[in-house]
Amino acid sequence: MTRLCRTFQTAPAAVPREDSAKYLRSGLTAEGFQLPDWLVPDLEDGTAPEMKDTALENTIELVDEHASGFPGEIWPRVQWGYDDEATRERGRQEIETLVRSVGDRIDGVVVPKVGRVEDVRAAASAIEEYETSYGHAPGSIELAVIVESARAVSDLDRIARLGDGRLAALVFGPVDYTAELGGRELDDGRPTWPGLLERLSNEASAGGLLAVGGPFDQLYRERAGVQFYNGDAYAEQVEREATVGLDGSWSLHPNQTAQANRIHMPRESELRQDVERIEAFEEAKSTGTGAVSVDGQMVDEATFKNFANTVETVRRIDETRPEQTAARYDDGLLGRALDLETSW
Amino acid sequence: MTRLCRTFQTAPAAVPREDSAKYLRSGLTAEGFQLPDWLVPDLEDGTAPEMKDTALENTIELVDEHASGFPGEIWPRVQWGYDDEATRERGRQEIETLVRSVGDRIDGVVVPKVGRVEDVRAAASAIEEYETSYGHAPGSIELAVIVESARAVSDLDRIARLGDGRLAALVFGPVDYTAELGGRELDDGRPTWPGLLERLSNEASAGGLLAVGGPFDQLYRERAGVQFYNGDAYAEQVEREATVGLDGSWSLHPNQTAQANRIHMPRESELRQDVERIEAFEEAKSTGTGAVSVDGQMVDEATFKNFANTVETVRRIDETRPEQTAARYDDGLLGRALDLETSW
Amino acid sequence: MTRLCRTFQTAPAAVPREDSAKYLRSGLTAEGFQLPDWLVPDLEDGTAPEMKDTALENTIELVDEHASGFPGEIWPRVQWGYDDEATRERGRQEIETLVRSVGDRIDGVVVPKVGRVEDVRAAASAIEEYETSYGHAPGSIELAVIVESARAVSDLDRIARLGDGRLAALVFGPVDYTAELGGRELDDGRPTWPGLLERLSNEASAGGLLAVGGPFDQLYRERAGVQFYNGDAYAEQVEREATVGLDGSWSLHPNQTAQANRIHMPRESELRQDVERIEAFEEAKSTGTGAVSVDGQMVDEATFKNFANTVETVRRIDETRPEQTAARYDDGLLGRALDLETSW
Repeated sequence: MTRLCRTFQTAPAAVPREDSAKYLRSGLTAEGFQLPDWLVPDLEDGTAPEMKDTALENTIELVDEHASGFPGEIWPRVQWGYDDEATRERGRQEIETLVRSVGDRIDGVVVPKVGRVEDVRAAASAIEEYETSYGHAPGSIELAVIVESARAVSDLDRIARLGDGRLAALVFGPVDYTAELGGRELDDGRPTWPGLLERLSNEASAGGLLAVGGPFDQLYRERAGVQFYNGDAYAEQVEREATVGLDGSWSLHPNQTAQANRIHMPRESELRQDVERIEAFEEAKSTGTGAVSVDGQMVDEATFKNFANTVETVRRIDETRPEQTAARYDDGLLGRALDLETSW
Repeated sequence: MTRLCRTFQTAPAAVPREDSAKYLRSGLTAEGFQLPDWLVPDLEDGTAPEMKDTALENTIELVDEHASGFPGEIWPRVQWGYDDEATRERGRQEIETLVRSVGDRIDGVVVPKVGRVEDVRAAASAIEEYETSYGHAPGSIELAVIVESARAVSDLDRIARLGDGRLAALVFGPVDYTAELGGRELDDGRPTWPGLLERLSNEASAGGLLAVGGPFDQLYRERAGVQFYNGDAYAEQVEREATVGLDGSWSLHPNQTAQANRIHMPRESELRQDVERIEAFEEAKSTGTGAVSVDGQMVDEATFKNFANTVETVRRIDETRPEQTAARYDDGLLGRALDLETSW
Repeated sequence: MTRLCRTFQTAPAAVPREDSAKYLRSGLTAEGFQLPDWLVPDLEDGTAPEMKDTALENTIELVDEHASGFPGEIWPRVQWGYDDEATRERGRQEIETLVRSVGDRIDGVVVPKVGRVEDVRAAASAIEEYETSYGHAPGSIELAVIVESARAVSDLDRIARLGDGRLAALVFGPVDYTAELGGRELDDGRPTWPGLLERLSNEASAGGLLAVGGPFDQLYRERAGVQFYNGDAYAEQVEREATVGLDGSWSLHPNQTAQANRIHMPRESELRQDVERIEAFEEAKSTGTGAVSVDGQMVDEATFKNFANTVETVRRIDETRPEQTAARYDDGLLGRALDLETSW
């Protein structure tokens, strides 16, 4: 089944404002292309230490209120650190509180700063323990990890092969990663870690996991005295991520969500091509020819699966976000995509 | 021993034309720089499903007819798929038929879409079984695998370390690989996977295997209404592959073979330099100095081996394709290269 | 503790000149920015075979004479080769002689051309054996390896995880590496192995080791008939290495040392920013707020450690090379950096 995670939008779960849940509420009630596939109430770096309790309360209250009307997935990010037991203990307490209070309303828990595979197993065990204690179905609360330590990258193949049915996504965390490796921002900018992104995409695919890129925090830039949304640079990062097969991108802002949702969605030309190929394939099959060539390319089961993936992605988006597919695709084309037979 | 695989040319073993073996015959009878080092009769994606039987018959018939006069190696590509037992069973039957009929005329079998190391072992076992059944010497029929799944890339070091004496080459398959990872072709073109190519070259070297790049299928391009052979783009890909130490490149067309054979062959300047270094080394040795410095560089055994490799590659080409070395090198230089003492 | 290895300068331990120790002496008595963090008397490729005995004598004599006044670390490079037992035996003899004669004056031994992890273990065992025989404290003589074989790169994670307290640094060796992989220098120059450098930086960080880039041997270039120091190209290589988090760069010349020492040293703007952040953090802590945000960024222990690293690097340099910090930083700023409280 095609699972959507075009956008992984973190929202600080508490900020020092009158409405401390402002960003969290905004994420959970977003509409149109600003609606993220995954909303991540952030109890970790996005929330100040003295607001951690409020952040947990906000998360429980707002998830409780909005989850049923939110078409995406909800994944709170807790505190964790492979190198600090006290932080892990706070993370376990947050996991317990979340599972006890809104365990049937969240899809999983995001665990940052994991280390080697043993540390990822420890995070998975914490979820399993409370899942059992509070009577949730085994495996119903999943795990996504932020890959941002040298140890996690070193163990990436072992982590992706855990195969425990709980680990669902690998998310890159470039800021901590660059700091841990001692990377520097000199005249040519920050390192972009292209080799690591290739491996992240590969290991996620090998393990049947989703792969998500890291945040882009230069939200605005300035030119000739005017500050404006830095939309080109973000779109270029998201396109690089899509090119190497990441399923989605991190978003820190509704504008970023709106861009990444579109970039990680098949283009109209891609959908049209794959719909036409499947239609041609079905027609050829019905005329009895044993094998089928479309556009001069033999269609085997693997090729067919690629065409079908495009169509199924569009269908999944259409099920829960029909305003996005309506805005993106010609009506006739969308209708054909929804009606096709996509099994081999 | 230097083994040549500058070019890995696939030829569909059956096409829907009057002469269904047209491309296969053309490959097996090519001359000059169009003669591939490895010819790969393609029973897999290059052949339509309804022509698979014809393809196998063509392969047997033409290999039988042309193998003795073909100076390169012959490596049929069979069907396989780590994720589909039915396809693997067809592959095993193809291997059996090939080994039984032309087992003494082929150098090995190319197995595509392998998965983790266990799957590569299964392919090797199939070859071993029929090699034994039909009385061929152990290890005489080798294995080359197409690396085109996330699992194979994840296991690349384990695969390259098999050390079974049967696995001879790792060949990249970018089309299936990109599809499996969900990579996309956006405005900056397809992903080129530079990190993977570095690893492919490294693991092949570590395991004593050959490494070959993936196919380039944009054979022609069009400009201002005229279509022409896309020779610059292909040469650039082959040069990138040669730079990181791949031994050869995939060819889909005699023009590509002619280019890749040249690019993966030492340049005249490279040959001249290494011949002169070996000559200087031999002279210095004969004058009795214990150690020798050439061009200000100390010559140790490792350095010497690099010089010798260039010369031995040229000799190997000269043995079976003298028209290529004659066209490429000055007569005097070639003569010196053939006469040198290249052992340490 | 921050350990300095901004520069890894090799000096041939014997050259065919009247003063055969010319370069070695020059390295051990360098001053200012030309003073390398690590000086590597080279008994391997930098020394001609017939001068190996002189090289060992020079090393012992000069290290004995200059070590106490040399502010950096001293790491002789011995002979070794994963594929040649005779070379390894020569290496073991060199290690024995060095440990016996100047074991308390050197910081470690650099072992080149290592292969898989078992070979690195063999090098570590040789050091351990003589360390014990000659009564040095366990672990007092460390090991740095040159990563320049496909096998070492294949085993990089296993090597970095040895965790024996003896292995201290991974140093890249591109010349042998490129030759072993069969990489070539075509029109776009030599391969730069960016994927490998990412992994080297990652595995070194994961294993708590230092990571150092490879030598740049095009020391001079020529234009319009004039030959001059190739300072731009070297600086660009060092900046690429610093960007991905290598701790230091290889130097073949005092000019290179002077450049790499500067590039791998925090810039004044970096130091100022981190000093200000720590000061702001300390002030906020003293006013009793539980948590502290600086420049709109929450400061947690990990963030703080990054700020502190910059300051501690500067302090380490200042301890032993005050002329470098004096030349680089404003007096007032340096004073503040030296006075700060840098524990969490």
